[in-house]
Amino acid sequence: MGNWKTYSLERLLCPRSIAVIGANEKTSYAGKTLRNLIGNEFPGSIYPVNPTHSEVFGMKCYPSVTAIGEKVDLAIIIVKAHLVVDTIRECIDCGVGGILVITAGFRELDPVHGAEREAEIRALAEQSGVPVVGPNCIGFANIYNDMWACGISELPKHPLPKGNAAIISQSGAAGFGPLLSIARDRKIGLKYIISTGNESVLNICDYLEYCLDDPDIRAVSMLIEGLKDTERFMELARKARRLGKTLVVIKSGESEVGQRAAKSHTASMTGNMALFNAMTKQFGIIKADDYEELVVLAGMAQQENALKTRRVCVVSHSGGVSGCTGNQLGKRGFEVPVFSQETREHIDTYLKGFGSPNNPLDLTGQMRSPNLPDILLTAEKNEGVGAFVISSHGSGERFENILNAIRQVRVPVYFCWTGSMNSTESIGKLLDLNVPLSFSIQKMAVMLDKMVTSFESRASVEETGAVQTAAVLPDRCGMLNEPDAKQILENAGVAVPRRWMIDRREELPGIWGQVPEGKKCVLKIVSKTIIHKTDIGGVKLKIGSLEELEKAYDELAALREQNNEISGFVLEEMCEDGLDLVAGIRRDEQFGPVLMLGIGGIYTELFKLISIRILPMGRNEIESMIDEVPGLKSLLSGYRGHCGYDREALVSAVVALSDLVASAKDRVTLLEINPLRVLDKGKGVCALDCVAELK
Amino acid sequence: MGNWKTYSLERLLCPRSIAVIGANEKTSYAGKTLRNLIGNEFPGSIYPVNPTHSEVFGMKCYPSVTAIGEKVDLAIIIVKAHLVVDTIRECIDCGVGGILVITAGFRELDPVHGAEREAEIRALAEQSGVPVVGPNCIGFANIYNDMWACGISELPKHPLPKGNAAIISQSGAAGFGPLLSIARDRKIGLKYIISTGNESVLNICDYLEYCLDDPDIRAVSMLIEGLKDTERFMELARKARRLGKTLVVIKSGESEVGQRAAKSHTASMTGNMALFNAMTKQFGIIKADDYEELVVLAGMAQQENALKTRRVCVVSHSGGVSGCTGNQLGKRGFEVPVFSQETREHIDTYLKGFGSPNNPLDLTGQMRSPNLPDILLTAEKNEGVGAFVISSHGSGERFENILNAIRQVRVPVYFCWTGSMNSTESIGKLLDLNVPLSFSIQKMAVMLDKMVTSFESRASVEETGAVQTAAVLPDRCGMLNEPDAKQILENAGVAVPRRWMIDRREELPGIWGQVPEGKKCVLKIVSKTIIHKTDIGGVKLKIGSLEELEKAYDELAALREQNNEISGFVLEEMCEDGLDLVAGIRRDEQFGPVLMLGIGGIYTELFKLISIRILPMGRNEIESMIDEVPGLKSLLSGYRGHCGYDREALVSAVVALSDLVASAKDRVTLLEINPLRVLDKGKGVCALDCVAELK
Repeated sequence: MGNWKTYSLERLLCPRSIAVIGANEKTSYAGKTLRNLIGNEFPGSIYPVNPTHSEVFGMKCYPSVTAIGEKVDLAIIIVKAHLVVDTIRECIDCGVGGILVITAGFRELDPVHGAEREAEIRALAEQSGVPVVGPNCIGFANIYNDMWACGISELPKHPLPKGNAAIISQSGAAGFGPLLSIARDRKIGLKYIISTGNESVLNICDYLEYCLDDPDIRAVSMLIEGLKDTERFMELARKARRLGKTLVVIKSGESEVGQRAAKSHTASMTGNMALFNAMTKQFGIIKADDYEELVVLAGMAQQENALKTRRVCVVSHSGGVSGCTGNQLGKRGFEVPVFSQETREHIDTYLKGFGSPNNPLDLTGQMRSPNLPDILLTAEKNEGVGAFVISSHGSGERFENILNAIRQVRVPVYFCWTGSMNSTESIGKLLDLNVPLSFSIQKMAVMLDKMVTSFESRASVEETGAVQTAAVLPDRCGMLNEPDAKQILENAGVAVPRRWMIDRREELPGIWGQVPEGKKCVLKIVSKTIIHKTDIGGVKLKIGSLEELEKAYDELAALREQNNEISGFVLEEMCEDGLDLVAGIRRDEQFGPVLMLGIGGIYTELFKLISIRILPMGRNEIESMIDEVPGLKSLLSGYRGHCGYDREALVSAVVALSDLVASAKDRVTLLEINPLRVLDKGKGVCALDCVAELK
Repeated sequence: MGNWKTYSLERLLCPRSIAVIGANEKTSYAGKTLRNLIGNEFPGSIYPVNPTHSEVFGMKCYPSVTAIGEKVDLAIIIVKAHLVVDTIRECIDCGVGGILVITAGFRELDPVHGAEREAEIRALAEQSGVPVVGPNCIGFANIYNDMWACGISELPKHPLPKGNAAIISQSGAAGFGPLLSIARDRKIGLKYIISTGNESVLNICDYLEYCLDDPDIRAVSMLIEGLKDTERFMELARKARRLGKTLVVIKSGESEVGQRAAKSHTASMTGNMALFNAMTKQFGIIKADDYEELVVLAGMAQQENALKTRRVCVVSHSGGVSGCTGNQLGKRGFEVPVFSQETREHIDTYLKGFGSPNNPLDLTGQMRSPNLPDILLTAEKNEGVGAFVISSHGSGERFENILNAIRQVRVPVYFCWTGSMNSTESIGKLLDLNVPLSFSIQKMAVMLDKMVTSFESRASVEETGAVQTAAVLPDRCGMLNEPDAKQILENAGVAVPRRWMIDRREELPGIWGQVPEGKKCVLKIVSKTIIHKTDIGGVKLKIGSLEELEKAYDELAALREQNNEISGFVLEEMCEDGLDLVAGIRRDEQFGPVLMLGIGGIYTELFKLISIRILPMGRNEIESMIDEVPGLKSLLSGYRGHCGYDREALVSAVVALSDLVASAKDRVTLLEINPLRVLDKGKGVCALDCVAELK
């Protein structure tokens, strides 16, 4: 766990009294914020503060926060930017519980002076322990408390039901704009909406941690523009996983993936967006593709009976539409189990030969008949029907039959609305039953898949245990030569070829005598700096006799005469054929140590046949990583008549690498095995070449 | 062009008089159909027909269609299934112009007797030339004529504006259900909606052709469950491309891709769904992923000023939202060009340092100010702003400023609505300006990308010209042996290795004398049936002398002793190194001849490094095919220090294959070159091995 400072956010986010500093009745942020507090009937005390007013919206207006004469829980500051720091100081002095700075005009407008002011704000917060939201944000809402401390216009009264999810957004305009609209339209219950602003003091991770600690919260949606502390975020993602709480994120800035200096495969193929994606997959975080998914998935995942299996019953009034729904789900790995004969016969007593009494159900006119509850209850009895996915629409009396059926079934119901979006009455009734709804069959299938995948992923993960042994690393730093790098691997339990260091020609006969009869060898130069040894002719393959060894040695010795980067020679036994992979670890500034596994050869980069994980990880994550490298599972299990390769040894080698890095703390900045040869089943793996850098 | 029978659909689809046979006032299909005709104020004559009624909905009801005493244009039949054939006969006898059979209970209910009745219907239509829609369909609508001949409930009066698009659906419940709802909600103008039913007579291609011939129609959306005549569909797709009309399709049944017997790579990797996808891409048909795309894209593509470039100006009231919009577009290849300094300075006179005066525009409060028209008109002056993509929302007076700006700009405007879906008044005003709208930024970006990609694809295609030379093919049929297959290639102009057929050992010295000094050769068995010659030891590589040749010959001759499938031997010059591809043609039952090009080796199937096209195709389609094979473009142009391969020769070889198949009509059922080796730049290609089957 990190050692970040945690503020108490109780009084800030659940205040009983609020001062609005800079209060007025205009259509300014201040006026809007006051209107929203009043309009939503905030049940605590509201104290407008403004030295130039005596009354605001019929309430007494105080000349200063000090003049209130009470320790208010939350002070909302909406004064000019240059007055903010002094106002914060005054607020702290008179004992406020937390501060929200809506005022803009800091870092985002003036990178020098704005940042200085933010540093002052941070210093005040740290000295006092009083938490500050913003500056430059829209505010936040606590729906349970009817507290809407946000400077937006046109907020209706009580726009959202209470629920078990929270939205945290680094874009205030998105959070209190489209995200709030979607939650309203879908009647999705929330507890908090928080816009984080410039994050001078509290950042997105602080709010996330607060939400994870809140027993009311089961799902948190986050709009992320940039993470200041990715390692802390990952720690919280692990915590969410332990607590069974669902995280949904959307990340902006995806099209600007930065190019990095390509010191190795591992570095060039594990850019930031790739790592962010790997992180979400690894921790079972749902990655939303648009605002609708971000909000609706939080609504779906917060439900206590949310679908966790992949077996569903599809229901429609139309064969075409139920077929389309079944297809969209089937494409994404859902099962639409066949019903028992008994079920089919019973349902057919209603259908009388029309439509289909099997799953997916095509109920024709029976969809909106009083028989629907009995039909769905009959279908539900079939083993493994984990949910109903209904694609239909309707209105009036006949639609009540659908609502009745939904009320009676036990499993969750997901509804694809196939009628007009403007059927607000019927849609409203469905939403009042807490039925997740989409206007697109495909979108519903995508969302169900993302939700179930996240549940599956989190259920399958074991927490990584303590590493058994400390890594044995040399003391020196910087790039190592190949034999030293291989020594690290060998110490960690990753097999390397048997090898002999050679200093002088005279040693050759003695060394060759140790090579087993019939084994071919390879002679290579040793160098810390020359990574592509083959390119300069520094590798001699298939040496089968002392004479060949001597000839090869002489050629390499001649090479050393001209190249003082060559420090010596190493003779290695050649390895039998196998499947060549590349396995690399590098230390990312943001994500810490990351591991890449991929299919080797010149096509690795071209075809991106790789998988990436953030370390540490457990053995079954390594298994899933192997399954994720395109084609690797098939190749390992025996492709086109091959007997198959030693998958188990590969897993153990990756575990060893992962443990090595974990136990070596931050010292390993780069470790790339290329190729890592996987031999035939039962024969293990062998690291044929290796590059390492220590710090 | 095909030689299918074309009915005249004028009286059917644009009737002036309609008989409804089986008319009643109930909530049956008949009652609903009559209500929809009357409710939409069909301007022609309506004749209810039912022998048991004298009056229906206040109109005189006729005992039979004959009793009407007039040649009605359209007869809608909604009688019991067993009466349909006789009713059709009577309709034909009294001179109706076209027939719509809504009645169900044919093939779909009873595969034997239902199909027989459909055959009778087809025979009647063919004899008389009277076109029949259905049976088992919902009907159709001609929006221009206010004619809604469809048996659905709850259809409001004049649900859609007139427009320049049509919807043809093989699922009536989808076509007159969700598709119609989406068109209504988005106020998308249409001319026709047609549900095709069982297609006993008219099929989806007939309606498509009719729409293509209709000068009012610029876009056609089709929901396809199954194509009976794919070649005709492709012919019509070519026609649409020539006419500049846009096709949008959605195909159901995608998750059940049939597995075929894998006689070759080409067969196993070009299954039906893959071919369908290849076809849409090749002909610039837009493939919709959901009902929204299917309908909204028809609405977008039918507009005369539809976006055809990739340079757009993004506009929002919020930086977060405009950034998200820019990203979603940027990810899909759109450009958001930087504005001139003059533009930025001018816009900044309104923004006064807040927001961003550059593209993507973050207009903060100015978004809904009276200055918006001037801001957008200034932005529009920048070179290459082909459209505005606005992400915003609003209401009341301030929203009028947005509407005013949209009215004044010249380029098309696309709107991502970031507010509540229930803001029907504002949304309605936008739609009345014919502004395409989505509730998801991502969806809008996806749709714009699909539309522009389709335009680009169609603009880049040249029609394939006449093939120069007829293919020289042997007369025999079935599988050919390798030398015969290579002879076909050589005749077509695809280079093959120099080779010598060998019958007897005595020929060896004479043949070896013809091999150039220093050339290595390969000796192979010849067989029509043994395709994997290496597997049985039937290939001897790297033969460098007469002695080696004689030794190799003796070994293969011994093999022939045991295997009577071996008919002889062939000596070939070995080819220098290059990039090994696989190029194959097979004749698909549905799509006709198809060509697959892919990267060779064992990974071809595993990683699907292929591209597929339907033949014939032009040279620049072949270029785009090469660019589409994952990684191939990079490999050809010189990857990792390689000098690059002979791309031009590869294109010529594929052109030759394409021409060969085109000129050979249907005779080539399989032709697979594996490997097709592409040599270094300027050195050509060489077909190292080949399998062929003729018919």
